[in-house]
Amino acid sequence: MSRILEWEEALSLLNKIAHPLPPKKVPLAEAAGLVLAEEITSPVSFPPFPRSRVDGYALGPSLSQEYRLVGEVPAGGGYPKPLGPGEAVRIFTGAPVPRGTIGILPQEWAQEEGKRLHLPFKVDPIVLASLIQKVGEEIEQGEKILVPGMPLTPPEIGLLAALGFREVTVRPQPQVALVAVGSELRDIGEWEESTIPSSNLFALEASLRLDGVQVYSFPPVPDDLKNLVSLIRSKLDLVDLVITCGGTGEGKYDFTARAFIEVGAEFLFTRVNFRPGGRIIVARVGSRFLVGLPGMPSAALVAFHLLVRPLIKALAGKELRPCFWKGILVEQVGKERRQRVFLYARARNVQGIWELTPVNLGQGALKAGIGANALVDLPPGTSPIPRETEVNFIPLNYGPLLPCPLEDKSNI
Amino acid sequence: MSRILEWEEALSLLNKIAHPLPPKKVPLAEAAGLVLAEEITSPVSFPPFPRSRVDGYALGPSLSQEYRLVGEVPAGGGYPKPLGPGEAVRIFTGAPVPRGTIGILPQEWAQEEGKRLHLPFKVDPIVLASLIQKVGEEIEQGEKILVPGMPLTPPEIGLLAALGFREVTVRPQPQVALVAVGSELRDIGEWEESTIPSSNLFALEASLRLDGVQVYSFPPVPDDLKNLVSLIRSKLDLVDLVITCGGTGEGKYDFTARAFIEVGAEFLFTRVNFRPGGRIIVARVGSRFLVGLPGMPSAALVAFHLLVRPLIKALAGKELRPCFWKGILVEQVGKERRQRVFLYARARNVQGIWELTPVNLGQGALKAGIGANALVDLPPGTSPIPRETEVNFIPLNYGPLLPCPLEDKSNI
Repeated sequence: MSRILEWEEALSLLNKIAHPLPPKKVPLAEAAGLVLAEEITSPVSFPPFPRSRVDGYALGPSLSQEYRLVGEVPAGGGYPKPLGPGEAVRIFTGAPVPRGTIGILPQEWAQEEGKRLHLPFKVDPIVLASLIQKVGEEIEQGEKILVPGMPLTPPEIGLLAALGFREVTVRPQPQVALVAVGSELRDIGEWEESTIPSSNLFALEASLRLDGVQVYSFPPVPDDLKNLVSLIRSKLDLVDLVITCGGTGEGKYDFTARAFIEVGAEFLFTRVNFRPGGRIIVARVGSRFLVGLPGMPSAALVAFHLLVRPLIKALAGKELRPCFWKGILVEQVGKERRQRVFLYARARNVQGIWELTPVNLGQGALKAGIGANALVDLPPGTSPIPRETEVNFIPLNYGPLLPCPLEDKSNI
Repeated sequence: MSRILEWEEALSLLNKIAHPLPPKKVPLAEAAGLVLAEEITSPVSFPPFPRSRVDGYALGPSLSQEYRLVGEVPAGGGYPKPLGPGEAVRIFTGAPVPRGTIGILPQEWAQEEGKRLHLPFKVDPIVLASLIQKVGEEIEQGEKILVPGMPLTPPEIGLLAALGFREVTVRPQPQVALVAVGSELRDIGEWEESTIPSSNLFALEASLRLDGVQVYSFPPVPDDLKNLVSLIRSKLDLVDLVITCGGTGEGKYDFTARAFIEVGAEFLFTRVNFRPGGRIIVARVGSRFLVGLPGMPSAALVAFHLLVRPLIKALAGKELRPCFWKGILVEQVGKERRQRVFLYARARNVQGIWELTPVNLGQGALKAGIGANALVDLPPGTSPIPRETEVNFIPLNYGPLLPCPLEDKSNI
């Protein structure tokens, strides 16, 4: 369509064009991992009542060395009337402090004998008073506590829960439809003469699921323009992003680009300058996005990691910038590279240095990423890159499967 | 119970004692992110038939400069009989190569005129033959392709799908029950005199969900030994790990340890040498695990991150070792630290150096982790740690919310 973009240019374009989806109110439990889309001010003070920081004794007015024990306040309980002079009550961490309390005596410092309480030594009234946590000490009513754009991790979720929020407005994850295109494809296990399983769908669905994205997978469709167009059209009404896989070449039966045109798509790019996977089409139809991934497994997955995961992040209001780490090649790689190449590798940290070993080089598209946890970024060039060269790489952080950047030295 | 363990010792103990859960067969789509528990040998060859690598022409025996075009083989199709001498068929990427084919002529090199095909220049028969992908070229039937212990990321899932696997045997994630303990706790939004919302449950559930763990949360239970014991007992039959939150102190109403004893638990440790959150109890009952987290929000979350997430990893057959990164404090921190302290901080990469800014210091337990993406590991000591000191930190990688270790320089 136009000149071939560099990867960074393609990302930059996505960053400009892929705006966060409209805010959505979701139950708090579903908000984790999403980005906040509203300013949160606290509707209440926290704690909502003065409470004891420790297990001990709430002491009534005018500090003395001896008190009458008149009751007990467990957490969740209460004491019905104000403490009078010389009165004390047993109290526990988190329990509401009775009116009239001037301080809390920690239980380690107290001597209890029947209904009498002795202070065995002089204690500082300021220390005792400091053991009462005041109303609003942690958070004041009306205080601004969270701002739009913050990712909601467990502490933010806990804070919102503590302030009584049952729902919160977030940038939702895009909903995704996955369609494999190719007359040679069948559902797994449905072996037929001249067909192969539609395996990319499973790999892509796995990646989306690990990122917490809701995905709808559809049975593979044959190379047939009309069929493909009507399928894409029907899915565009239901989801934010339709991803097809296969048919992005320029052959007689490569219908992806033509189908995108038929549904009225505006193309962002149809090719990006890297291998494998540079033959990726990204387009939009109104506010919806269309991605055409190449059908070769390694190409589909690399393009997905380098461009589609960032697109999804952008739609969810997150930072889409790539993560580059630095490492050292442990073996010579590459012959002539007419384009930038992303090479599957195993990154292993040895005494603070990332050692990168290419995996399954020259083993075919299906095996390309097996056992890999990194993509090494190789510039174009006419000669091999010698071992020991420092290179950039991108960790393949699939959900909790993150390569650890520094070896632990504790021999666990 | 015994001497207080260091964090690394506690992890080491978990690593010894928490064995991976028994293998389980799961549908392929649910296996992503889990660890493989069987050796996979391929039941088929891949590709299962010889196929064309490119769009072009399959050429019949005895290479010449001119052929008769006798048909077409799209992907998923086939050609009914062997190619005879001088015969060629139009063929597309991935389509099965007819019997008798000696090579594929790429379409860019061919001249087609009516039913005749011309080779405009001399071509090397070895090159043409290499464009036929042979049966089993990527994977041979019976070939060992995946070994137990491998994490299943998208490429492995794709490979398994391509070979026709609909199910695979993995180490499952543990199932977890979450119970908040405290008479002062109520479900969110049920404000009552002297009570606060059971917020830790939401935070912990969020963390578990982001790690892909199935979790069952229960309404908060009051500080009541009998009640707690029967609740724990009933959950132990249903899940692999029961986590309580609250009541791990040594006060009159701290029933966690006593409840664990009542259900016949064997304690691994009842305290670990760090703050906040060192007052964590880990025990087991037969093959099930019991964790008692402290009730203070920051303590619960730090202990959860430092010990419970690793325990869950070990049960799922994954590496539990912590990730240490190195960074620089941008401000002085700490007064006297009798114990090792893990400090919530914001890690920001500035020209390859991680700058660590403590967040919400001294702001109370609820705000402690807000906006943080790292825990800084501070050793015990009697004086503050000056700014510019190099320290270890642990990234708070909640699912896809990973701090990026190197700033991108491309101005995207």
